[in-house]
Amino acid sequence: MSQTAEYVKEVGRRAKAAARVFGQCGAARRDKALLAIADALEEGVEEILQANAQDLEAADQNGMRDSLKDRLRLTPQRVASIAEAVRQVVALPDPVGEIDMGTVRPNGLRIQRVRVPLGVVGIIFEARPNVTVDAAALCLKSGNACILRGGNEAIHSNLLLARLMRGALARCGLPEDTIQLISDTSRESANAMMDLRGYLDVLIPRGGAGLIRAVAENAHVPVIETGVGNCHVYVDATADLEMAVNIIDNAKNQRPSVCNAAETLLVHKDIAGQFLPLAQAKLQEHSTQLRCDPAGCAILPQSTPATEEDWATEYGDYILAVRVVESLDQALEHIARYSTGHSEAIVTRDYDAAQRFLNEVDAAAVYVNASTRFTDGGEFGFGAEIGISTQKLHARGPMGLRELTTVKYMIYGDGQVR
Amino acid sequence: MSQTAEYVKEVGRRAKAAARVFGQCGAARRDKALLAIADALEEGVEEILQANAQDLEAADQNGMRDSLKDRLRLTPQRVASIAEAVRQVVALPDPVGEIDMGTVRPNGLRIQRVRVPLGVVGIIFEARPNVTVDAAALCLKSGNACILRGGNEAIHSNLLLARLMRGALARCGLPEDTIQLISDTSRESANAMMDLRGYLDVLIPRGGAGLIRAVAENAHVPVIETGVGNCHVYVDATADLEMAVNIIDNAKNQRPSVCNAAETLLVHKDIAGQFLPLAQAKLQEHSTQLRCDPAGCAILPQSTPATEEDWATEYGDYILAVRVVESLDQALEHIARYSTGHSEAIVTRDYDAAQRFLNEVDAAAVYVNASTRFTDGGEFGFGAEIGISTQKLHARGPMGLRELTTVKYMIYGDGQVR
Repeated sequence: MSQTAEYVKEVGRRAKAAARVFGQCGAARRDKALLAIADALEEGVEEILQANAQDLEAADQNGMRDSLKDRLRLTPQRVASIAEAVRQVVALPDPVGEIDMGTVRPNGLRIQRVRVPLGVVGIIFEARPNVTVDAAALCLKSGNACILRGGNEAIHSNLLLARLMRGALARCGLPEDTIQLISDTSRESANAMMDLRGYLDVLIPRGGAGLIRAVAENAHVPVIETGVGNCHVYVDATADLEMAVNIIDNAKNQRPSVCNAAETLLVHKDIAGQFLPLAQAKLQEHSTQLRCDPAGCAILPQSTPATEEDWATEYGDYILAVRVVESLDQALEHIARYSTGHSEAIVTRDYDAAQRFLNEVDAAAVYVNASTRFTDGGEFGFGAEIGISTQKLHARGPMGLRELTTVKYMIYGDGQVR
Repeated sequence: MSQTAEYVKEVGRRAKAAARVFGQCGAARRDKALLAIADALEEGVEEILQANAQDLEAADQNGMRDSLKDRLRLTPQRVASIAEAVRQVVALPDPVGEIDMGTVRPNGLRIQRVRVPLGVVGIIFEARPNVTVDAAALCLKSGNACILRGGNEAIHSNLLLARLMRGALARCGLPEDTIQLISDTSRESANAMMDLRGYLDVLIPRGGAGLIRAVAENAHVPVIETGVGNCHVYVDATADLEMAVNIIDNAKNQRPSVCNAAETLLVHKDIAGQFLPLAQAKLQEHSTQLRCDPAGCAILPQSTPATEEDWATEYGDYILAVRVVESLDQALEHIARYSTGHSEAIVTRDYDAAQRFLNEVDAAAVYVNASTRFTDGGEFGFGAEIGISTQKLHARGPMGLRELTTVKYMIYGDGQVR
C-alpha cells in the first residue's frame, strides 16, 4: 500500500473511532460543539484571511480565472456568514432519535425503527472553502464524523478551517477526529478515499460532472451522486405565454452556472411561432445564445443550429438549446432520453398534460408552472443541504440532515425465541 | 464489447423501456398480472417439474451435495406454495403513490414527496429457483422491471419459470420484458450486470458472502449488500439464565445456515462459571461444537480452543464461538470489531446495560432479551422481503416493498420564479 493510501486509511480508522464516541454524545453536546465552532471561526478571522491569501497568491501564479478566484476568496464578511450558517444549522430540527415505525408483534416483541447517524461521511469537493465548514456542520449536527477532501486550490484555507473546528471540538471534550481534512490533495488521495471500505459509510462528491462521474464509477464504498443537471422546460400548446417567458428566462438566466438551471427549451409546435420570438426578446436581455433545431431556426432565423451534442450538454452558461416538438409525447421522449434526472418543468393550462408530465417524467423534481431553479434545500424548506442527489437510492433531490442518517431496529423482548 | 456484455446491455435497454410502460400501468393492472403469473405457475406445474428434473440430473452428474440438491428440487407442493406466495404479495399494501411529505411554501409552491418505483432492479442469486419467482413478484408489485441472473445449477428451472411469467404479462397486455432472466450464467454475465450503468437502478446480490463481496467491490451501479451475518448473543451478568440458555440455543441451533443465526456467545465473567455448563448441556442436544477462549476452556475443559479466526467466522453450522468478557464494555468492543452489522442481542435484567447495548451497538437490528433469529421481513410484519440489508444507505435490515421504491418531488406552481 502506498504512503498516501496508508495515510488515508489511518484517517479512516481515526474517523471510525471518533464516530463511535461522537455519535453517542447527545444532541445538546453536538449543538454546543457547533456553537463553539462558529465562535472559533469568528475569532480566527485574521488567521483565516492570511491562509486564504496564500491560496489566492497561488491562484494568481497559476493564472486562475477571475470567476473561480472569486469563489475561492474569503473576506471578513464571508467568514462571518460562514459562522452564521453554522449557527443556523444548530437551529435545525435534529433527525437523530426519531422513531419512524413502531409496532408490537403478536409474540410481544416491541419493534422500533429509530433514526441514527450514518457513522463516517466522506466528502470530496472542489474549490470553495465554505464547503469545508458547511459540510462539517451538517455532518456533526446529524451525529456523524466526517472526512473532508477539498481541492488543492483552497488547501491553506481548508487546513486552517479544519484546525479551528478541531480545536473547538477538543475544547468541548469531544474527539477532534470527528472532523478530519485530508492534507494530501493528489488524485491518489481521492482514489484512496474511494477504497475506504469498512471505514466510510458514504462518500459524497460535490463538484463538476467529471468529479462526480469519476467517483461514481470508481468508488468501492457507497456513493451518493449529486448535482448533474441537464434540465428541461417544456412549453405546452396551452401555456400562458407570459408565464412561460418568465419561467424559461428565470430557469436559464437567473444563475446559469448552477445545476438546477435549464439547458433546453422544448416548445409545442402549435405555439412555437408565437412563443419563440417572445422568449428570444426576453432572453436577449442576458445575450443568451439560442441553439435551435430546424423548426426553431425557421422561426428564429438568426439563431445557431443545434447539433445532437447540444441536447446532452449542461452548458452552465448563457446558452439555451431549443427544440420544437410535435406533441407532449415527443417532449416526454426527449426528456426520457437526455434528462439527467434532476429537475424538469412543464408550463401548461391543460390538466391532463400536467398530470402526465408529473407522473411520467423520471426526475428528482418535476414542476408544473414553476422554474426549475427551486430545487434546493433552502427553497424546499429543509434549512440546509449537503447536495442534490440525482440517484434513486437512499436520497433523491435536495439532501438535508435526514439524508445524513440511517435507521436501526431496536427490539425489546422478554425471552422470545422462534 | 464482448458478446455477453452486448447481450446483457440489450437486456438492460429492454428492461428500461419496459419499466417506463409498466411503472405507469397502475396498481390494479400490476395486481392482475401477478395473479395471472400465479395461475400460470400452477397450470405449468408439469413443465416446471420436467425442467427441474434436468437441473437435478445435472446436479447428480456434478456430484452436488444432498442439502444443496434439496434446495434446488421442486415438487408439486413447492410449486403450489411458490404460486401462493405470489398471491400473498398481491395482498400486501402498495407503497407506490404514498406521499410521505407535503408542504406549501411561502411563495405558494405546493411540494409533495411521492413514492415511485425505482425503475429497473437487478438481482444476482444462487441455487434456489423459488427466488426467481419471489424476487420478480416483489419487483412487479412495487412497479419495477427486473433483470434476474440466477446460478447455472437452476438454469432450466429458471428459464421455464421466467417464460411462464413473461407469458402471463403478455396475456395481460403488459410488456413481457418487465421480467427478464439472463440465460448466460457465466461469470462474465454477472460482471456485465455490475457494469449496467444507466440501465440498472439497483443491483441486489442474494447468496453467499463471496458473491456479495464480489458484487459490492466490483459493481459500478448502486448496490444493496444483503445478508452477511456474524451475529452475537451477549449474556450479561444479570441475565435470567434460563432465558439466556433458550435464546442462545434458538439463535444458534434453530436454523444454523441462515444469516440471522448467532455465531458467537459472549458471556460476562461473573456468571460464566454458572451459565456455560447450562448452555453446553442444552446445545449438546444438537451436538453443537463450542470453540472457547482460554477462560471458557477453563470452565468447559472438553471444548475446542478458539482462534482469532473464529471470532470473524460466519459458520452457518452447529458451531459456536464462546468468549468470556470482563464487562459490558468489553462485549461492546468485541461486537464493534467483529460484527457484520446484521443482528446483535443482549440478555440482561439491567436497565442501563440494555439501553447502552441498544444505543451503542451499530447493527441493523439490536435485541434485548430475544433471539437474533427474528430479523426477517415476515417476523417484522412486512409480509415479504427481498433480502436483509447490512448496509446503511437506502435500506437497513429486512427489505420489503417500500425499499424497492424511491421518491420524486412533485411541485405544483402558478408561475413562480426565483
